[in-house]
Amino acid sequence: MNDNYGDDSPIAAFATTPGKSALTLIRCSGREAVEKASSVLMPRTIVNAPGNTVIHGWVASSGEKIDEVLVSVFRAPKSYTGEDGLDISCHGGSTAGKAVMEALKSAGFRDALPGEFTFRAFMNGKLDLTRCESVMELVSAKTETGRRHAVTRLSGALETEINEIKKQLVEVLSGAEIFLDYSEDEIEADAEEISGKLPKQKTAIEALARLKKLAASWQYERMYQEGITAVIAGPPNAGKSSLFNLLLKEDRSIVTPVPGTTRDWIEAWVSIEGIPIRLIDTAGLRESADPIEKAGVERSRKLLQEAELVLYLIDGEQGVTDEDREFVFESRDRGIAGREQDTKNGKRPEQLIILWNKCDLAPPFAAFPFAANEPIGVSAKTGDGLAKLCAAIAGAVQAGKPTDPENNTQNAALGSARQKKLVDAAAAALEEALALAEKGEPLDIIAPLLREAVNALGEITGEVSTADILEEMFSNFCVGK
Amino acid sequence: MNDNYGDDSPIAAFATTPGKSALTLIRCSGREAVEKASSVLMPRTIVNAPGNTVIHGWVASSGEKIDEVLVSVFRAPKSYTGEDGLDISCHGGSTAGKAVMEALKSAGFRDALPGEFTFRAFMNGKLDLTRCESVMELVSAKTETGRRHAVTRLSGALETEINEIKKQLVEVLSGAEIFLDYSEDEIEADAEEISGKLPKQKTAIEALARLKKLAASWQYERMYQEGITAVIAGPPNAGKSSLFNLLLKEDRSIVTPVPGTTRDWIEAWVSIEGIPIRLIDTAGLRESADPIEKAGVERSRKLLQEAELVLYLIDGEQGVTDEDREFVFESRDRGIAGREQDTKNGKRPEQLIILWNKCDLAPPFAAFPFAANEPIGVSAKTGDGLAKLCAAIAGAVQAGKPTDPENNTQNAALGSARQKKLVDAAAAALEEALALAEKGEPLDIIAPLLREAVNALGEITGEVSTADILEEMFSNFCVGK
Repeated sequence: MNDNYGDDSPIAAFATTPGKSALTLIRCSGREAVEKASSVLMPRTIVNAPGNTVIHGWVASSGEKIDEVLVSVFRAPKSYTGEDGLDISCHGGSTAGKAVMEALKSAGFRDALPGEFTFRAFMNGKLDLTRCESVMELVSAKTETGRRHAVTRLSGALETEINEIKKQLVEVLSGAEIFLDYSEDEIEADAEEISGKLPKQKTAIEALARLKKLAASWQYERMYQEGITAVIAGPPNAGKSSLFNLLLKEDRSIVTPVPGTTRDWIEAWVSIEGIPIRLIDTAGLRESADPIEKAGVERSRKLLQEAELVLYLIDGEQGVTDEDREFVFESRDRGIAGREQDTKNGKRPEQLIILWNKCDLAPPFAAFPFAANEPIGVSAKTGDGLAKLCAAIAGAVQAGKPTDPENNTQNAALGSARQKKLVDAAAAALEEALALAEKGEPLDIIAPLLREAVNALGEITGEVSTADILEEMFSNFCVGK
Repeated sequence: MNDNYGDDSPIAAFATTPGKSALTLIRCSGREAVEKASSVLMPRTIVNAPGNTVIHGWVASSGEKIDEVLVSVFRAPKSYTGEDGLDISCHGGSTAGKAVMEALKSAGFRDALPGEFTFRAFMNGKLDLTRCESVMELVSAKTETGRRHAVTRLSGALETEINEIKKQLVEVLSGAEIFLDYSEDEIEADAEEISGKLPKQKTAIEALARLKKLAASWQYERMYQEGITAVIAGPPNAGKSSLFNLLLKEDRSIVTPVPGTTRDWIEAWVSIEGIPIRLIDTAGLRESADPIEKAGVERSRKLLQEAELVLYLIDGEQGVTDEDREFVFESRDRGIAGREQDTKNGKRPEQLIILWNKCDLAPPFAAFPFAANEPIGVSAKTGDGLAKLCAAIAGAVQAGKPTDPENNTQNAALGSARQKKLVDAAAAALEEALALAEKGEPLDIIAPLLREAVNALGEITGEVSTADILEEMFSNFCVGK
């Protein structure tokens, strides 16, 4: 574990994104945070401020006023971290916050490590690990649905579910331990009864079902967190870029364009029916002798291989060309986008959506002899067919979702790969315990498996945890959180 | 004036930049702001919170939790706007703040107009206009020096200076009005004394000197606010882009790269000795038949014409070429960069800085027969000569600064073109009044000029103001301020 995590020295970090804005928020926490900060604050009386009060004043250093600020004072344990702390609201822009931060450092604060505020909140018992993770998840949420799921976890739904399952397993485990602690003679009658079963067999089976339901939730949850990659492909001049722009305009408010690593492709995040989609506009696919264009086409092919969804655009005015046919049949034959079926998210025919562009000029016709790949008529120019396209995209995604996904918004669902791994481990141990019991194996072989399952669940909430795991988790947080 | 400015209806705005950050701050203000907000806040008891307190809770709508928040409550008149208000600190990222904002709108808040919070602060007598402007200036400050100047104005230095000069002018004016109110007989003796002078002539002259000093401060202040444009020019492959990157790296922390409008040039803000410099890397200058390249070169020439500073890069390995000579001599003969001397910021030979790149491979030699344009040896590869280049840039800028610029950081200085115009108007009226007095013109002709000067100063602080001026000013603010 890094030396710095785990101490209570005063830390400070920008809690908001720098930029041209009205305000910048700097968060401070740690031992004597208020006392230390007050050495660069006017009025000095701030040092006596009670918790949860806001004071108007100035940050000043060596008599020079640095910025006019509002300071919220927090007193342990009534704060995010559980320590004394301050939120300093200074002016926005690129200079004021920086100057205030320098003053704080001169007053004895150090830069916070990524996630260090939340780490301290965990260490001080303010949040369990599932809620710590949901904080990060909430900040990174790409769509409104993603946010709703994160808030459900932040308010403790997953923590509660994990703790309830763990309680069930502890019941099963203590049932088993009674047999280990006492001689068989003493409780012989009971032992007869449960032959071929775990003690509290029914509870164990119910716990297993709950674990499996949680595990199944991850595939869908992950999609909301990480999004899926959709690549627009097709011949040059089919209208790929126009379609890209049209999809961006559809939900402009949550679009966050990210420059591609090269000029050969452009990507942006869009939300289609609540699903975050990383939409990629590629260079046209065509054979070329020009080495630069060739490199672009090569890159397009690689993106196609990585994509969860391919939007293949036929130029309606040209009609279906040999190249179009080749692309579609090749995709079908090799499994979509050249990958094995049922890897990662499971490849399905729905993942190739064929679009017939310029449908306002030339109506689409059934061009391919397999139903899932009938072209959808669209017009990047008029916007025709856009709703149908969005529905097809959502449909392709829905085809991969678990049976009762709607309940996931209300109920407990997993929020991280770490949690998934531990739930899987708990379920596997419990499953093995049930199998061994059925074979009539002795409880002293079975009990350690039950203990393993209980520990895995304890690790999810952080009740059982190691320094390595904590460091790994929190170092992925953003600074200021 | 826009209908919306000037009412006290509840307004809300993001006060921080959206982005992947720990927190997002939403600012609310207006009549019954706390009551209205409390309808979407848990606990509802927030409605009774005293001013300057912080409450931990949730934003919730129709029973669904939207985000966990900290709410700072402010009660009129102890707030930024002078109204009741709330600062809501929600989770960062692209979704939580947006969802909270929607909840606030459902509770009766509307989007704040640009600068509306500060507008209300002005209307409620919390800030005079010079301090309102300094708020915007502070948020936009590009360098540490710019920030210091803005803070000086925010703490009231300019307001105080303007009010003191105005007081002097009012003294002079009331001196004059005594003569207008009473007959000459009654105060004849005094009238003799002041023949050829204004009443309180000495005070008037002192006030004029102070106004002129303030007016002179603007040229330098403006530079810190708006920055200066420096263009890197030179033949293809001279190392222009490498130099650009090197200068960016020198002060990476305040670099804010801005994409150019075309691919043909790139620009970024850098701070060189506290001066914000918009650094532009141009396409190489060379004759070309290719229409695309030709257009790029054309654009470079236009940028050169607009630049306050030209960094011309000679390829040291090639030595000085005919094109280099032509560029340098042409620039000198036409005035730098083809513009008249002494326009806008005054063109001076220092504004063309000639650099000899690759000085690690080929040492520079005196290539031109005029001293101000001797090449500075640099190496974009090794970083050699960078300090000398920065000093030359700073020197070129310093050459244009007023006589006692250092005092500007401590003393009152102007912060906007609006203020400059009004100070100029006041100075011109006062100067004319002094001239008329010297000619022995009667005071009833002179007094209106003095009144004009007093009014111009009152307009600077907002004591005298019109709706048009206020709308113009505040609509240039950013939202949330």
